[in-house]
Amino acid sequence: MRDVCVVGVGMSKWGEVWRQSLRQLFVDAAMNAINNSGVDHLDSLYVGCMSSGLFVGQEHVGALMADYLGMAGLPACRVESACASSGLAFRLAFIEVASGFSDIVMASGVEKMTDCSGDDATFALATAADQEYEVFHGATFPGLYAMMAHAHMAKYGTTREMLSAVPVKNHYNGSMNPVAQYPFRITAEQVDKSVMIADPLHILDCSPITDGAAAVIVTTENIAKKLGKPYIRVIGSGLGTDNLALAQRQDITKIKAAAIATENALKMAGKKIDDVQFAEVHDCFSIAELVVAESIGKYKPGKAGPATLAGETALDGKFPINSSGGLKSKGHPVGATGVAQIIEVYKQLTRQAENGRQIPGSPKIGMTQNMGGTGASSVVHIMEVA
Amino acid sequence: MRDVCVVGVGMSKWGEVWRQSLRQLFVDAAMNAINNSGVDHLDSLYVGCMSSGLFVGQEHVGALMADYLGMAGLPACRVESACASSGLAFRLAFIEVASGFSDIVMASGVEKMTDCSGDDATFALATAADQEYEVFHGATFPGLYAMMAHAHMAKYGTTREMLSAVPVKNHYNGSMNPVAQYPFRITAEQVDKSVMIADPLHILDCSPITDGAAAVIVTTENIAKKLGKPYIRVIGSGLGTDNLALAQRQDITKIKAAAIATENALKMAGKKIDDVQFAEVHDCFSIAELVVAESIGKYKPGKAGPATLAGETALDGKFPINSSGGLKSKGHPVGATGVAQIIEVYKQLTRQAENGRQIPGSPKIGMTQNMGGTGASSVVHIMEVA
Repeated sequence: MRDVCVVGVGMSKWGEVWRQSLRQLFVDAAMNAINNSGVDHLDSLYVGCMSSGLFVGQEHVGALMADYLGMAGLPACRVESACASSGLAFRLAFIEVASGFSDIVMASGVEKMTDCSGDDATFALATAADQEYEVFHGATFPGLYAMMAHAHMAKYGTTREMLSAVPVKNHYNGSMNPVAQYPFRITAEQVDKSVMIADPLHILDCSPITDGAAAVIVTTENIAKKLGKPYIRVIGSGLGTDNLALAQRQDITKIKAAAIATENALKMAGKKIDDVQFAEVHDCFSIAELVVAESIGKYKPGKAGPATLAGETALDGKFPINSSGGLKSKGHPVGATGVAQIIEVYKQLTRQAENGRQIPGSPKIGMTQNMGGTGASSVVHIMEVA
Repeated sequence: MRDVCVVGVGMSKWGEVWRQSLRQLFVDAAMNAINNSGVDHLDSLYVGCMSSGLFVGQEHVGALMADYLGMAGLPACRVESACASSGLAFRLAFIEVASGFSDIVMASGVEKMTDCSGDDATFALATAADQEYEVFHGATFPGLYAMMAHAHMAKYGTTREMLSAVPVKNHYNGSMNPVAQYPFRITAEQVDKSVMIADPLHILDCSPITDGAAAVIVTTENIAKKLGKPYIRVIGSGLGTDNLALAQRQDITKIKAAAIATENALKMAGKKIDDVQFAEVHDCFSIAELVVAESIGKYKPGKAGPATLAGETALDGKFPINSSGGLKSKGHPVGATGVAQIIEVYKQLTRQAENGRQIPGSPKIGMTQNMGGTGASSVVHIMEVA
């Protein structure tokens, strides 16, 4: 296996981007990544995208994006694992470069979510859950995560105050992120008083619907060195799955797929979870960040809430989580989120995080945790300063 | 790179399978492949699926299938490249085994197409074309292939008689395939008199709408030997793309993506096209088989029609094409077709083709060509007797 690096990153505008279509969002991000890295060609392209069929009536997304990037002919592949689609695209790019199959691969993700109605978007997102045993019976994602939240509160005494601490922290970080969809601070009181979506989750516990794309260049260390641009090393990759329907899981206060993915990624990296100094995790709902922080083994079950409330996961805490603002503040174009997490770790490790968002103390090792649906799939990557 | 083999294959029932859902079709094919190979576990799973979101309201297909296979936890990935989805799934399984990343990987494909209305299925299939520049303006797949047929007829003198020779041959082969959706012979007169869909294409020029799944076990030669079951070696893999919209192509009488994919696959295999003795190609419409036979370099432009009419591509011809019955007779569950092509080559090379469908002369090298939409993506694999 060859050493694999990330050498350039790019994002499109994120938010309600009325004037750009699926392909335009992708091309913006991809061209930014190409320019940022200085590569003169690509050998292959992976595009993570969850549900362009339902959102905008377009499948065959790999070939389309190669075409609109001006690279028709290029081997291109669309990958789907619900909201973990581009985390998985990044993993496949990693495998293709590590194996020597290709030298320069773009890993990317895109989703155009605001071109359909709110009802249609809710249906499209629900296809990440079990259509036959959950969605058909009326389950939506806020409802499913609300059940996980209630179970966690009942089992571990997690409080409403602890839940609110997650979006408050993430919006604080996101207020310094120039690409964030909602770059402003919020207070715990605002979270508690915001409209109820699915008890105990208020709207300010929920990540938004977002249009956006993200892309990174994955290559060998030799090529990264020659390009003369800042780069980081990818030292571990893990992928895990779990039962799709919540009702079939052993324990809904834990994300087993994230535990498996983390274990595999750490094993490949030859590291322990305590070697990891910060993380971007999949905070699609407030409860998700707490459950994931425990599932990856950073906190014992029930301890992530108190730790968050105590500021341990803040930008200047012992283990900063979601310095980017997370899905909550930065936005959550489902197919693009996984690669955007990689971009934040890249920025932190190369000390390019904007507006005072840089984590103090020059951390050397960071990780990303991206997941699909209620966590039936999860992808984890470990990266280090090169 | 390690030697990569296919050691076991499985299919579900193909056709209008009213009593089985997406997941049940997959599990049938997957369990058949596992039983056929004798493997005791999987390291990873790839599932090709084009548009389960639009067909049955279900994304997150990788995790779902791992779950229903009784293997929740398994790394699983859904891959989409329209009708080339499972050809691409097979390629990624090949890369994962060749690189040493995993030892035993399942490549599979599934599509459940008959659970939605005909109009909805036509829309779902059209998402393989360019939504903004083709579909929005009313283009459907028979219409797009009809334009390619007219261009080919005008440029090379291809005739209606040559077009008809394709489905007549494929139904002859398919009549001997126990899994074929339409296992009966047809005549050229029946093709010519069948209802017109998009001039010059009649309904008997068009592959059907099908429910079905297919799966194969991809592993190293060492493991394949130990299992003691018949296996074949995968010696070349190629992937190419082209402009998505027909209007932007240099030449619509050729599938450039198939030419690129074939060139790359042959280069990896260290072979020339004339070393290949038979092929499964993507005959979604009669014209497609002719254009592909030329694009892969087996026939000069304009020569595939006369060759087909002369019987060169028949089961006992110089270069048998679609001994399985092809998409036309066997059926075309879009996400499953690519892996089903691999299965036919496996059966031919291991001399397990049923009912007198075995190609005479014990051929040693075969290929598959799978493509998405009007050929904006194409995947080619070269396999040999082990």
